[in-house]
Amino acid sequence: MKAVILAAGRGRRLSELGEPKPLVSLLGLSLIERIILTASRAGIDEFCVITGYRGQEVESALRRLSQTRRLNITTIHNKDWPKGNALSALKGRDFVGQESFFLLMGDHLFDARIIERLKQRPPEEGQVLLAVDSHLDNPFIDPLDATKVQVSQGLIRAIGKEINPYNGYDTGIFYCTPAIFPALQEGIDQGDGRLSGAMEILAKQGSLKAIDIGGLFWIDIDDLSAYQRARKALKENLRSKATDGPISRHINRPISLFITEKLLLPRRISPNQITIFSFLLSLLAAGAFFMTPGWGPILGAFLAQLASIVDGCDGEVARLKFLESPFGGWLDSLLDRYADAALIFAMAGHLHRQQPSDLLLISAFLALVGSFMVSYTAPHYDKLIRRGQVPSGWRIGRDVRIFIIFIGVLAGQILATLILLALLMNLEVLRRIFVFYQLERSPTRSA
Amino acid sequence: MKAVILAAGRGRRLSELGEPKPLVSLLGLSLIERIILTASRAGIDEFCVITGYRGQEVESALRRLSQTRRLNITTIHNKDWPKGNALSALKGRDFVGQESFFLLMGDHLFDARIIERLKQRPPEEGQVLLAVDSHLDNPFIDPLDATKVQVSQGLIRAIGKEINPYNGYDTGIFYCTPAIFPALQEGIDQGDGRLSGAMEILAKQGSLKAIDIGGLFWIDIDDLSAYQRARKALKENLRSKATDGPISRHINRPISLFITEKLLLPRRISPNQITIFSFLLSLLAAGAFFMTPGWGPILGAFLAQLASIVDGCDGEVARLKFLESPFGGWLDSLLDRYADAALIFAMAGHLHRQQPSDLLLISAFLALVGSFMVSYTAPHYDKLIRRGQVPSGWRIGRDVRIFIIFIGVLAGQILATLILLALLMNLEVLRRIFVFYQLERSPTRSA
Repeated sequence: MKAVILAAGRGRRLSELGEPKPLVSLLGLSLIERIILTASRAGIDEFCVITGYRGQEVESALRRLSQTRRLNITTIHNKDWPKGNALSALKGRDFVGQESFFLLMGDHLFDARIIERLKQRPPEEGQVLLAVDSHLDNPFIDPLDATKVQVSQGLIRAIGKEINPYNGYDTGIFYCTPAIFPALQEGIDQGDGRLSGAMEILAKQGSLKAIDIGGLFWIDIDDLSAYQRARKALKENLRSKATDGPISRHINRPISLFITEKLLLPRRISPNQITIFSFLLSLLAAGAFFMTPGWGPILGAFLAQLASIVDGCDGEVARLKFLESPFGGWLDSLLDRYADAALIFAMAGHLHRQQPSDLLLISAFLALVGSFMVSYTAPHYDKLIRRGQVPSGWRIGRDVRIFIIFIGVLAGQILATLILLALLMNLEVLRRIFVFYQLERSPTRSA
Repeated sequence: MKAVILAAGRGRRLSELGEPKPLVSLLGLSLIERIILTASRAGIDEFCVITGYRGQEVESALRRLSQTRRLNITTIHNKDWPKGNALSALKGRDFVGQESFFLLMGDHLFDARIIERLKQRPPEEGQVLLAVDSHLDNPFIDPLDATKVQVSQGLIRAIGKEINPYNGYDTGIFYCTPAIFPALQEGIDQGDGRLSGAMEILAKQGSLKAIDIGGLFWIDIDDLSAYQRARKALKENLRSKATDGPISRHINRPISLFITEKLLLPRRISPNQITIFSFLLSLLAAGAFFMTPGWGPILGAFLAQLASIVDGCDGEVARLKFLESPFGGWLDSLLDRYADAALIFAMAGHLHRQQPSDLLLISAFLALVGSFMVSYTAPHYDKLIRRGQVPSGWRIGRDVRIFIIFIGVLAGQILATLILLALLMNLEVLRRIFVFYQLERSPTRSA
C-alpha cells in the first residue's frame, strides 16, 4: 500500500523549534519520521514524500531513515511549493499510478489505527475517503485553526476553515483513488492552490466520503502550543500502561520519562543498550552489599531502585522511537529476573557473613522463589489485566518488590525484608492460582 | 451444529471386550464417549445418538456423559436395529429438521480436524458429503473389511465393500443435508437396510460428494485387531509430543504412559489431582534429603525421578480423556517450578549441614536461578520448536534436569551436581538468548 506525504511547506509558526518543519524534532524523532513510521506500522510500505522548502535537507534525512529502517521512501521536489499544497499533491500522480493510496500531511501526527480503520473500507472508484473527527471538543484541536467539514449521510457536503455549520474536523488523512488528481488539476486551473480547493470540488460531486475516527488520537502540529500538546499526549500514552504497578505508576514512571526525554531520546542509544545498562546497575547494586563498609547495603538499595527506574526507560525509548522488538521485550524481562535474583542473593549474603542462620537461608530461598513465581505467572496475569478481567490495581510486580527492598534496607531490616518478600510474593502466587481457578470455572469466561 | 450418531449395532466381533459395543472402553473412555467428545471439540454442540442393542445401558451412560461434560445429548431408541443401520439413521429425521448435520458411526474413531475440514465446505442443497481416505495403504485400515468408494471429479460413483476398482475408503463421516432421508427411505423400501444402500442411491444421482481427509487419523473399530491398533495410535500420539526432551522421550514417557493406562485411566482421577500428587511426591523427595540416615538423598533422588515421571501422566490423562484445561496446564508448570526449587534447596541444605561453604551456596543459588530461567524462557522456545525454527533435540528442560540430579545424587556427588546444573542451565539460557537474537535478525523470520 502506497502513501503520498506532503512535506513541502515552511511552517513559520514552528520556526523557533527549527526549520524546515518536517525535520522539527519531537521526542527523539522528526515529525516526518514519526509520520512515516506510524504509517509503516499500519501496513503502508511505499512512501513518496513531496518536499519543497529546504527540500534537500528533508531528502537527505529521509535517505538516512530509509536506510536505517529499511523503508521504501521516494522523494519528489516541488519547486512551486509556495503556490499551495494542491500542487505538491499533484506531484504524486506518477508514483501512485492507478492504485488507491493514502495521502498524509507532513505535520499531522496520528494513531496508526486510523489508517487501519480506513483500510477496512477502501474507496470505490472515483471516491476519496477522509478520516473525520466528529469529536468537536477534542482537546488536541484548536477549533479556530482547524479545517472543518459538514457531513451528512456519510458524505462530506462542505469543507473549509470558515464553513458554518460544521460537525467534524478534517484530520488530513485521505484514502484516495486516482480520481483526486483531476480534482486537484481543476482547482489549480481555477487559481486555487489549496488541497481544500480540490476537496471542495470532490465534495460538490458527492465523491468525498467521511470515515469517523472514533475518538482516536491525531493532531495538526502547526504552532508551538500544538507541539507541546502533542509532546504531552505521547508521554501520557506511555504513562498509562495498564500493567504498570502502583510504584511504577506513581514513582518510577514519572522519573523514567524525565530521564528518557532529557538524556536518552536526544542520543543514539538503543533500547537494548538501556536494558543492559539497567542490568549492570542491578549487578552493581548487588555487589555493593558485599562491600566492607557499613553503608554498602545503603548504596546497594539506592542503586537497585535507580536500576528499577532506568528499567522503564528501554520500553519508553522503544515505543517513542518505533524500535520495539519481541527480542528486546523478552531480553528485558529475562535480565530483570537475573537482577532480582542477584539482589536477593546479595542481601542474604551480606547478612550471612555477619549472622548466619537457617531462618535467613530459608527466607532468602522463599523470597527468591516467590519473586520468580510472581514473574513466571505475570504473562498470564497481565493478559487478564489487559482483558479487564482483573483490576490492574492489584498487580504486585517488580516495581513493588524492588521498592520494598529499597525501604527495608534503608531501615536496616534486611532479614525482615526477606521474610516479608517471602510471604508477600508466595501469597501473591497463591492468590493468582485462586483467581485463575475461579475465572476458569466461571461460565462467562472469554476464550 | 448437530450430529446424529449410529450406535445401535451389537458388535459381536468385539464382544470379548464387552457388550454393547458403544460402551467398550478404550483408554479411559467408551467408544461412544470418545466419538462425542471428539466431535464436540470440532464444534458439534447437539448430539442425537440412535441406540439399539442393549439401548438402556447406552442411554444411561450418555445421560451421565451429558451431565459431567455439560453436553446436549438426545437419544432415540431404534427397536428395529437388527434390520440395518439405514433404519437407525432414518430415526434422526425429526432431530435434524431442515438443517445440515453430521452423520457419524458409533464405532469409528477419528481426528477432530476431519470434521473441521468438512465444515469449511458445507454441502449444497440435495447433497451429501462423505469424508474419504484416499490413502489406500493406510495401516489402520483392513482393506478386506472396509467400505470402498470410487471417486471421480469429486463425486462418488460407486460405494460398497465389494466394488472394484476403488480409489478410497468410506470413513463413515458424513456431512448431510436432509436429502439423505428420502434416499434412506428408498433403500429400505427396496428391502436394503444398509446405510450403504442409501449411499448407492445418492451416488447414482450424482449427489454424493467426496472430501479427502488428507491423511488424518480415523479407524473403524470392528474387531479386536482394530481395537489394538487404535489403542496404539492414541498412545503413540501422546508419545510424539514435540516439546518432550530426550529423557522424557526415551525414559519417562514410556513409563508414564504405562502408569497412565494401567493405574490412572481406569479410575476417576482428574489431571489436576495427578499434578498435585506429583508435586507432593517432589516435596517428599526434598524432605528425604533432610533425613538423618545416610540413604536420605538416595531415597530423595528416587522419589524425585518418580515424581518427574508421574508429572507426565497428568497431561496424558487430560488428553486421552478430553480433560485439558488452560488452568490445568498452567498449574502443572507452576508447581513444577516450586518442586524444582525445593529439590535444589534440599540438596544444598543436606550438604550445608555437613560441610557449609560459600561455593555450595553460590552453586545452589546459580543452579536455582538457571533452572528457573530455563523454564522462564521455555514458552517462547517451545513456540519456536513447534514452528520448526529450532530442532527439538536440543531442548534441555525439566526432564534432563531431574535426571541429572537423580544420577548425580546416586553417585554421591551433590556439590558437583549443583555446579553442573548451575553451569548447564545458565549456559542454556545464554544459548537461547543467542538463538532468539539470531532469529530476530534473520530477515526470513516468520511473524
